[in-house]
Amino acid sequence: MRVSRLEAFSDGVFAIAATLLVLELRVPEDGHDLPSELLRLWPAYAAYLVSFLTIGIIWVNHHTLLEHCRQVDRRFLYLNLALLIAVGIVPFPTALVGRYILTDGAATAALVVYGLGAILIAVAFSGIFFYASHDARLVGDVAAARRIRAEGRYFPIGLAAYAVGIALAFVAPTASLVLYGLTALFYALPILPLPDR
Amino acid sequence: MRVSRLEAFSDGVFAIAATLLVLELRVPEDGHDLPSELLRLWPAYAAYLVSFLTIGIIWVNHHTLLEHCRQVDRRFLYLNLALLIAVGIVPFPTALVGRYILTDGAATAALVVYGLGAILIAVAFSGIFFYASHDARLVGDVAAARRIRAEGRYFPIGLAAYAVGIALAFVAPTASLVLYGLTALFYALPILPLPDR
Amino acid sequence: MRVSRLEAFSDGVFAIAATLLVLELRVPEDGHDLPSELLRLWPAYAAYLVSFLTIGIIWVNHHTLLEHCRQVDRRFLYLNLALLIAVGIVPFPTALVGRYILTDGAATAALVVYGLGAILIAVAFSGIFFYASHDARLVGDVAAARRIRAEGRYFPIGLAAYAVGIALAFVAPTASLVLYGLTALFYALPILPLPDR
Amino acid sequence: MRVSRLEAFSDGVFAIAATLLVLELRVPEDGHDLPSELLRLWPAYAAYLVSFLTIGIIWVNHHTLLEHCRQVDRRFLYLNLALLIAVGIVPFPTALVGRYILTDGAATAALVVYGLGAILIAVAFSGIFFYASHDARLVGDVAAARRIRAEGRYFPIGLAAYAVGIALAFVAPTASLVLYGLTALFYALPILPLPDR
Repeated sequence: MRVSRLEAFSDGVFAIAATLLVLELRVPEDGHDLPSELLRLWPAYAAYLVSFLTIGIIWVNHHTLLEHCRQVDRRFLYLNLALLIAVGIVPFPTALVGRYILTDGAATAALVVYGLGAILIAVAFSGIFFYASHDARLVGDVAAARRIRAEGRYFPIGLAAYAVGIALAFVAPTASLVLYGLTALFYALPILPLPDR
Repeated sequence: MRVSRLEAFSDGVFAIAATLLVLELRVPEDGHDLPSELLRLWPAYAAYLVSFLTIGIIWVNHHTLLEHCRQVDRRFLYLNLALLIAVGIVPFPTALVGRYILTDGAATAALVVYGLGAILIAVAFSGIFFYASHDARLVGDVAAARRIRAEGRYFPIGLAAYAVGIALAFVAPTASLVLYGLTALFYALPILPLPDR
Repeated sequence: MRVSRLEAFSDGVFAIAATLLVLELRVPEDGHDLPSELLRLWPAYAAYLVSFLTIGIIWVNHHTLLEHCRQVDRRFLYLNLALLIAVGIVPFPTALVGRYILTDGAATAALVVYGLGAILIAVAFSGIFFYASHDARLVGDVAAARRIRAEGRYFPIGLAAYAVGIALAFVAPTASLVLYGLTALFYALPILPLPDR
Repeated sequence: MRVSRLEAFSDGVFAIAATLLVLELRVPEDGHDLPSELLRLWPAYAAYLVSFLTIGIIWVNHHTLLEHCRQVDRRFLYLNLALLIAVGIVPFPTALVGRYILTDGAATAALVVYGLGAILIAVAFSGIFFYASHDARLVGDVAAARRIRAEGRYFPIGLAAYAVGIALAFVAPTASLVLYGLTALFYALPILPLPDR
């Protein structure tokens, strides 16, 4: 399979999942005091921002990985499909967090679900990352495979951060959301150098 | 018509239909006991998973077929449009199943509709599959056409599985959904070998 | 501007507008007698079918036109944007028709709006069609420009059909929807021959 | 990173954000007097038009800029992500305006939010514009970089227009929306000449 069509489908899911997030910003039913109604929606804005950032950064890393691949096989396709299933679900935990982060009792569940969703994505992404680099066949170049594999050491850091975020959800839900945002930014660090072409 | 633009439009519909599925995961209105509210949504998660998997696997097979095609003609375009109309509707039966699989009486109707939708897709996909291979014109190569045609013997298996799923809907709706998921996995088997490029 | 990026953006809008149509198929709130609830939704299924078909066929004709174009200029881009604005609105009249075609009094308004939307699309499409062919600059070939221009004689037929559909809306709303569907099929006739490449 | 994949993802977000706007055109719940119900929705239609136009014109300018770029780096990617986050949010202020522009008190807040969203987009777009042109590395050509930089003098005009729009929101909300639409048209003027290819 040509890498380009895999990218096209994946880009579609990434872009749609990110753009659907806006549907969770609900117009207040009651416009009587619209300015304060809008301010009270801040958790929804924060969740939108963290989730769009997360998906955008996954997109950058996904395409960087694929730029190193000369070809993909069927197993890669299905690992990639698992990643897309995980990314496609993001609007749901985002909506949960936007709605319940200020509700005692419900906030913890919302942020635990958010963290579990993030872990799902990180695991699926690690899957295609390690599969692509486990031998040099897909990347077509031993040096590139070794470099990709070496970068794999960063993944446990992200997973650990999400686990801490889930723990934080029980004591400080807002801090938990902040941590999820920071973890996205951590993944924004150059995991793989961009190829020069 | 260039195959590439047909792919772009088809990929768009596949990716959007799959990503819209998440909109059927509704945030519980009542956050009083959010953890158990979220657990009670399991049919919606299961339906999301089965449908995303189904669309993803159709996408893989669709692109594999198109990789074998050197060109497409207008009739192919309209057969492909029929497939997209069938794929685009998937979020509707998915929502039905997610909502009603545990409701006595309604569950059967929901899973029958789901199975009919799946049959519609399988028939439309068979249509473009056989049309592309019925002579060597589109695939541009007699050997490839014969190989595609030979693989066509797998389609009746999928159709039979969906028919059994519809029958199961009357006695065990949950088993019916499981069967739909397994049928998707069956289609994940390599129907056509991926071209090497 | 490269024609390919214009196509990518246009394909995106076409694919999304078509796939969003499914959101108008609402899961019945009451599953007490789900089979008959689902049957009562037939106007929504019919509207889905007619609109998806219409968008799909516009897509085919749009890409066929663009295959004849060697380049596009800024004016072409804005004419194309007008077409996309018209296509992007399709889910709204579709929802109107699906909801109100059986409601005395409201049905006429719903189908008039549907017809006006279709006329908007036809006019915008004629716009880019005639602009592309009015001199040979964009298509880069006098013979192709003349052929495109000659095909322009079919547009008034479509417009007339939509006008009749609007008139029919006042006496027989269902017949009006049927006519809109048939008009889409009329546009499916080969307006422009597909280039051979 | 190849410019082409950045375009694909960006085009996806642009196209989806524009097409999602239609979801804010709500079918009237009550079809008793559908024609006047539909006429009363005019603010939603106007907001749809202004926002689709704005996104479409940003798309044209975005692609024109990228046509001048020979490559992009990671910093460019994240600046572009900021632009996409701002564009992706457009359906929310659009819905606010469509719903509240005729409601005393709420109209001002809705149009202020709309203007702030527009400023966010303009600032993010300026960011990638200046970053791309600040040295000749990305555009690969000193003359092109100078031309892009020279065009940068138009950005403050747009920003000033949005600021006036926000001020207008306090005295004449409808005039404010008209101004936002005109500003979009201002950006439709050829900021950068289209490359000839």
